Amino acid sequence: MSSDGNGRSWWEALLSEEARTASSSAIRDLLRHAQRPDVISLAGGLPTPELFPIDDLRAATDRVLAERGRDVLQYGLTEGLTELRELAAARATATDGAPARPEQVLVTSGSQQGLDLVGRCLLDPGDVVVVDDPGYIGALQALRGRRPRLVGIPLDAEGMRTDVLAEHLADGLRPKLCYTNPTFQNPTGATLSVERRRHLAELAARYGFVIIDDDPYGALRYSGEWLPSPASFDAEHVVRLRSTSKVLVPGLRIGWVIGPEWLLDRLVIAKQAVDLHTSTLSQVLAHELLRDPTWLDAHVEQLRPWYRNQRDALLEALGDELGDRARTNPPDGGMFCWVELPEGTDTTALLTTALDCGVAFVPGGAFAIDRPCPDTARLSFATESPERLAEAVRRLRTALDRTTVTA
Amino acid sequence: MSSDGNGRSWWEALLSEEARTASSSAIRDLLRHAQRPDVISLAGGLPTPELFPIDDLRAATDRVLAERGRDVLQYGLTEGLTELRELAAARATATDGAPARPEQVLVTSGSQQGLDLVGRCLLDPGDVVVVDDPGYIGALQALRGRRPRLVGIPLDAEGMRTDVLAEHLADGLRPKLCYTNPTFQNPTGATLSVERRRHLAELAARYGFVIIDDDPYGALRYSGEWLPSPASFDAEHVVRLRSTSKVLVPGLRIGWVIGPEWLLDRLVIAKQAVDLHTSTLSQVLAHELLRDPTWLDAHVEQLRPWYRNQRDALLEALGDELGDRARTNPPDGGMFCWVELPEGTDTTALLTTALDCGVAFVPGGAFAIDRPCPDTARLSFATESPERLAEAVRRLRTALDRTTVTA
Repeated sequence: MSSDGNGRSWWEALLSEEARTASSSAIRDLLRHAQRPDVISLAGGLPTPELFPIDDLRAATDRVLAERGRDVLQYGLTEGLTELRELAAARATATDGAPARPEQVLVTSGSQQGLDLVGRCLLDPGDVVVVDDPGYIGALQALRGRRPRLVGIPLDAEGMRTDVLAEHLADGLRPKLCYTNPTFQNPTGATLSVERRRHLAELAARYGFVIIDDDPYGALRYSGEWLPSPASFDAEHVVRLRSTSKVLVPGLRIGWVIGPEWLLDRLVIAKQAVDLHTSTLSQVLAHELLRDPTWLDAHVEQLRPWYRNQRDALLEALGDELGDRARTNPPDGGMFCWVELPEGTDTTALLTTALDCGVAFVPGGAFAIDRPCPDTARLSFATESPERLAEAVRRLRTALDRTTVTA
Repeated sequence: MSSDGNGRSWWEALLSEEARTASSSAIRDLLRHAQRPDVISLAGGLPTPELFPIDDLRAATDRVLAERGRDVLQYGLTEGLTELRELAAARATATDGAPARPEQVLVTSGSQQGLDLVGRCLLDPGDVVVVDDPGYIGALQALRGRRPRLVGIPLDAEGMRTDVLAEHLADGLRPKLCYTNPTFQNPTGATLSVERRRHLAELAARYGFVIIDDDPYGALRYSGEWLPSPASFDAEHVVRLRSTSKVLVPGLRIGWVIGPEWLLDRLVIAKQAVDLHTSTLSQVLAHELLRDPTWLDAHVEQLRPWYRNQRDALLEALGDELGDRARTNPPDGGMFCWVELPEGTDTTALLTTALDCGVAFVPGGAFAIDRPCPDTARLSFATESPERLAEAVRRLRTALDRTTVTA
């Protein structure tokens, strides 16, 4: 069968609605351009490989393979390695202000998989999901497979405007899920204030929806005060997604979900169907590094000043080169700085010029849900050195100078 | 919100249709019982850990972390590691009788994930999938999330009855997918004859559906002749799922999909949303072992006589202890032997008695699609030693003697 008579290939009739409507992420397509050697990329959120604990991972691998190779190379439980679930629960209890038990933990292949599994268990087509607007593309891509109705909630310097969400709810909106990065939000870098965390949890309890507290960057705080997870106000309505990608290494693909047990039971069944379980070796290696609190503290104390220094270098270069042409809300942590360029700037068009000038970033429009933000951009300070960040901003200024502002 | 007024918890109203209908697999629940130390388990399909190449993995890990730790611990491409895709394509070309290019390969977290992704890209609720009946539970679980209509096609000693499938098709059945283990089928151990492989490919081309050739055991052949993949007759209508779990180790969770490019493009987009990519470290380690053909040949030549010896021990014990009370079709490879017990035996009831006698197996009914097979059982010879297999069959005979046959 080469066609169905309507000029379509035989296989086009076989595609699911999900496959027909899915598309590759804008970030991903952009990253291909950003890989040119002459381009300094502020586009990706790749952790700096200089600080990967390679020698410690070598030693840990050698140890676990020598001592219990047969166990760590065999099939494992879908829920994840018992000792890693225990450790994840203990860490959550210590760092989120919300206690958790090992039975509430499911180990996943990165927190991306946690998101996919939560979507599978809670969403049918047309269900409402409220999300940070602008919001993290990768998350929205995982949820979009379920074909929900996404409703964007605007952010300001204190994160998601829970007052706007409350108005929607009072008007009758009935979401099943609320997706947010409460801490160092991707892409804006904003952190949800403690009052809003409490408010959000109250809304979830009152209207009966689940908050996804996706927090991959929490340990990377460079300024400001620690804040409790929304789960500290209502653990029954919050599912926490945690990742080792930013603090250890991304290549192991280890994250976990912490949630109420009614949801965990369903997530485990879903994960069993999806991939049986996450790489046992990756789980053991993540556990070997994380279980030593002295090592972990020392490691994080290396990461923080490194990234803080890069953040400060980017902010300084933006001030020096662009002045009030680039408004920013300096992030207290994480990897991203959000800039608003002069009104009328089209950052998607600017990107083409910027690539010619040897610098890449992600246009803010790529993260927009309901509110176009054509004059914004996300700049990552995670990967490049302070010197390269300064050079990147000089190139960005050149690109901006070459671009006509149409306001 | 503690309930919705109908006595349901607030969260029950949030569950997706998929989550409300999904259930844990029978195999999985059974394995919990089978883990008792006094039970010899013929239930699971765990590869024998005695032959895990632990020292080679230790050496490979040490080498890759020392030489290119920064690369192999960083985020990677969704498609998978380039060198592993090249190797997978070369192996497929050499062993399937059907050439493949690296662009046709997507690395997955085990072949289970390949199945989930194919289901996401091709199935909407109500779509028809024809499957081996009895068929591999784990596969059906992955596909069931899409809520398809499963139609079982009976098997005999030469695998799926393609003549029965042809009748269904002539009667108007229009499947999108055909799921089969052509080689050493799970659970029956049957191998699809070359004529039927050709016939199946012809039917797929004629009626416009995709065959999933799921072959995790192909390298573990103990007798009989090599057979080409159905893809050798029509590569455009066949997607191959391959796994390193049985030949290397399961704990790395490395498999891959080989398919036509129209499908690969969609699978990559789906995988990006699901988990970004498979553990880079696991991919590199699988590649390090598989890339040396001399090493791999020697390793497989260790595995084959080991498992052959265990298969023969199980078959001999069945003959000695049960005689014509247990009819079998001796498998040419893989890990499973299918037995038909005297008509009227209820193997689900027998399992309870068998566990009391210290032996576990999977009742055939767990694999049934449209045809109940209450008097059958799947016995795995993969994990236990010949002596333990013989003891297990003695215990099975005791259990059978204690059970009333109701025919």
